[in-house]
Amino acid sequence: MGKGFEGLSVRHLLVLSVALNVGLFLKLAYEREVNFGTEQIFHGFCAEEEPHQREISLFSSSSMAANAEKASNYFHPSSWSASSIDELDDDGRIINLDQWNSGGPTASTQAGHISDDIYINHHDLTLNVSLPPPPRVGSNISGDPTMYERYWQQAGDKTTVVISGWQSMSYFSDVRNLCWFLEPEFAKEVIRLHNIVGNAITEGRHIVVGTGSTQLFQAALYALSSYGANEPISIVSATPYYSFYRQVVEYMKSGLYQWAGDASSFNEDKPYIELITSPNNPDGFMRQPIVNRTGGMLVHDFAYYWPQYTPITSPADHDIMLFTVSKSTGHAGMRIGWAVVKDEDVAKRMTKFIELNSIGVSKDSQLRAAKILQAVSDSSEHGGDVEEGRNFFEVNYHLIAERWNQLREAVKQSGLFSTPAFPAAFCNYSNRTFRTQPAFAWLKCEGKIDDCESFLRGHKILTRSGKHFGVSPQYVRISMLDRDSNYHLFIKRLRGMRYNLE
Amino acid sequence: MGKGFEGLSVRHLLVLSVALNVGLFLKLAYEREVNFGTEQIFHGFCAEEEPHQREISLFSSSSMAANAEKASNYFHPSSWSASSIDELDDDGRIINLDQWNSGGPTASTQAGHISDDIYINHHDLTLNVSLPPPPRVGSNISGDPTMYERYWQQAGDKTTVVISGWQSMSYFSDVRNLCWFLEPEFAKEVIRLHNIVGNAITEGRHIVVGTGSTQLFQAALYALSSYGANEPISIVSATPYYSFYRQVVEYMKSGLYQWAGDASSFNEDKPYIELITSPNNPDGFMRQPIVNRTGGMLVHDFAYYWPQYTPITSPADHDIMLFTVSKSTGHAGMRIGWAVVKDEDVAKRMTKFIELNSIGVSKDSQLRAAKILQAVSDSSEHGGDVEEGRNFFEVNYHLIAERWNQLREAVKQSGLFSTPAFPAAFCNYSNRTFRTQPAFAWLKCEGKIDDCESFLRGHKILTRSGKHFGVSPQYVRISMLDRDSNYHLFIKRLRGMRYNLE
Repeated sequence: MGKGFEGLSVRHLLVLSVALNVGLFLKLAYEREVNFGTEQIFHGFCAEEEPHQREISLFSSSSMAANAEKASNYFHPSSWSASSIDELDDDGRIINLDQWNSGGPTASTQAGHISDDIYINHHDLTLNVSLPPPPRVGSNISGDPTMYERYWQQAGDKTTVVISGWQSMSYFSDVRNLCWFLEPEFAKEVIRLHNIVGNAITEGRHIVVGTGSTQLFQAALYALSSYGANEPISIVSATPYYSFYRQVVEYMKSGLYQWAGDASSFNEDKPYIELITSPNNPDGFMRQPIVNRTGGMLVHDFAYYWPQYTPITSPADHDIMLFTVSKSTGHAGMRIGWAVVKDEDVAKRMTKFIELNSIGVSKDSQLRAAKILQAVSDSSEHGGDVEEGRNFFEVNYHLIAERWNQLREAVKQSGLFSTPAFPAAFCNYSNRTFRTQPAFAWLKCEGKIDDCESFLRGHKILTRSGKHFGVSPQYVRISMLDRDSNYHLFIKRLRGMRYNLE
Repeated sequence: MGKGFEGLSVRHLLVLSVALNVGLFLKLAYEREVNFGTEQIFHGFCAEEEPHQREISLFSSSSMAANAEKASNYFHPSSWSASSIDELDDDGRIINLDQWNSGGPTASTQAGHISDDIYINHHDLTLNVSLPPPPRVGSNISGDPTMYERYWQQAGDKTTVVISGWQSMSYFSDVRNLCWFLEPEFAKEVIRLHNIVGNAITEGRHIVVGTGSTQLFQAALYALSSYGANEPISIVSATPYYSFYRQVVEYMKSGLYQWAGDASSFNEDKPYIELITSPNNPDGFMRQPIVNRTGGMLVHDFAYYWPQYTPITSPADHDIMLFTVSKSTGHAGMRIGWAVVKDEDVAKRMTKFIELNSIGVSKDSQLRAAKILQAVSDSSEHGGDVEEGRNFFEVNYHLIAERWNQLREAVKQSGLFSTPAFPAAFCNYSNRTFRTQPAFAWLKCEGKIDDCESFLRGHKILTRSGKHFGVSPQYVRISMLDRDSNYHLFIKRLRGMRYNLE
């Protein structure tokens, strides 16, 4: 009787437990159902995306060969050997090095603005290079950072964000903060990451969040120019400068500021704002202020000042420092950037700009960015509980190194181009000495090729001409951050490229 | 032996089953961990928010009494009876009707801009009304729509969005679309919702997404003015107009356009752009173009043209129509708006503006907005599988109706104010005749009270003065969309308000 009774109650418990398991399985399946749904959206987009985008990247310094070799071993199975690239099928499609390369407002709609744009018809990617390409809806996007997808796919669920319908409905994030639309969680992760990488001073600074660093750039101009005089303040930047800056300065015909061109030739005795991008876009060099006078204000764009691109020699310490997830983590679609600002009044005015421009910044994107930055920090913290082989900066440093190495070899093989030679420096974050390996390759056509963009277009490779950066058309800019498949196809073509005198 | 053996194996199975239970619980807890984390941010904010925000709403037409009674029954247990409001404890705190009411750029920083702003010190909400309040970081947010939280909390998990770390990384959404950063899923839900509600023609139109309708408003001005002449095009709007518009037009000192004030007094023989908000902010009336001449272009802001606010008499059919989730679903923090645009070139130029302004719009917010709009559509589709008592528009229509009824009663009781009398109209969506019940109450102080804002401030109720809308300071604007607790406390105070001649 005793054993029978005991057996019966255990059976009951077992039945209950199994029923509970069934319920938990169903609940877990539901929790993941929506995730699958949104994944489908993503994969659907990827499938469309492939035929549209191609990219190349080039490199010159031979000292990277050893690093690239290590990189090849490091992130198996993503390494591509020279022979595997040669085996690629080339279907003769157009490779777009600059993705939606256009100079901004079209000539027909913005008289007086940048007029010589490069167009491609979205709906028909066949390109007859003897005719000017047909006009299209332009855009000016520099380097879709889809190279980073691989890392984040491998990172798995730890960066998944779940947002309920009732969350983040209010306009307001932290009403006690100067930047009232800044999500505290996001600010916390920004500061943590800067402390880990050591690429910016944050102590005593104000964080302002923006819809990408592009919006923050405009906020900075607004904040600095409003203190100014009765005439628009001059905005300068040393050539070659990020072409998009000029368009952003000019498109509103603002009375607050005006584009005044090359910083190196600016010698007017009046207030100015100098824009410094370091590493620079397009050529990749580290930059210092050029205009050496009083009365000037500086805006630093540190989009690329991260250890996968360049040695972190010291924490940046400037009045206004701009960063973006687009280039640090690769999440361009999130539209999140941040500014580290020294002066409180400047931070207030930048906040005011964003209030008037878009009444703040998406809370959803900030929450997601916080999650992503946290994952980057967790993966890369010295002395932290770092998963083997998953340090975000290390993984992507090696990936970029390999790409530069492959392109350098291809350039050698072709004999038609050159790329900048970067000085080596010691990186305090990764404890290695290396040369900058920028997100863009600044390629120069040598010899008889005067117009590099045209030459490459003749090979169905679309690039962005140096003239958009205020320099000679012998230069072109090429993004290094596209997906592997695009990049490798370009390498293949580059190797076989020869200059034909016809 | 048999029973003993049988008992032993059942026990083993039980142990295994319980172990599985534990594992599944942990997994489910993890899946929800991130959700809880973001909820904590939200609830933490709510806890801070409560002491900071109070709001009132007022109403006049007695014909709404019956509807309000029905509304009280409809969405139990959210109804508040007159006696339950009287029983509220009033701790004498400041009720902010306008939440962060400020007129935009502060006088000290923007000479020549709107100078007479109302300030409150974030860090110290005690207010001495005999002294001007201390300046603070201003903002100009009209009506944080937190009233909608309740509906979305009750909606549960169907509106939960899950975004993985590798999703939506690219700048691009659909590269074949004119608006290349527009998420197709979001566009689909926009069109579906407009078709269900019948409040806008979408056939043959272009959808442009923006970081809130504020950004789209600027995109529209950019798109329309660039075709213009050598001088800035005039922007007009009939008073009382949405005060924020003027600040948005002026803050960049754009050479493309300029604020030209009241539409009713505009009689210059040159191109102009007229802004029409309908229902209007602040007074709630439906609007038509005022300037009746050729050479004009119209921008329609239909933020409030939804059936919880006003009868849908016909699908809006204009060249540029702006909408926002902030006021339709209550998700202000998402920063999502959309424009329905007739002309392709205008849509292209609006797209170009947003490209230059912020290189597109957050993909995360678009995905979330798609989910929310889908839930609204699912809940409100005639003939669809609609859950009883969960039609989004019905639930919130009744909620707003009750609020207006309560405030009307309170106004009667006080005898110091009046509110607009709205004409009744038949709503084709909800098949009922009713009067507009706007998101803002446009309150007028009667009798000896010349400055309504000051009078109410003396009762520790902060409102937005009519002078910010281009009319007499006898008027104030009050948001109807705050949380229940804030709103009810204001009702209580309003009832007891009397004019003291001291």
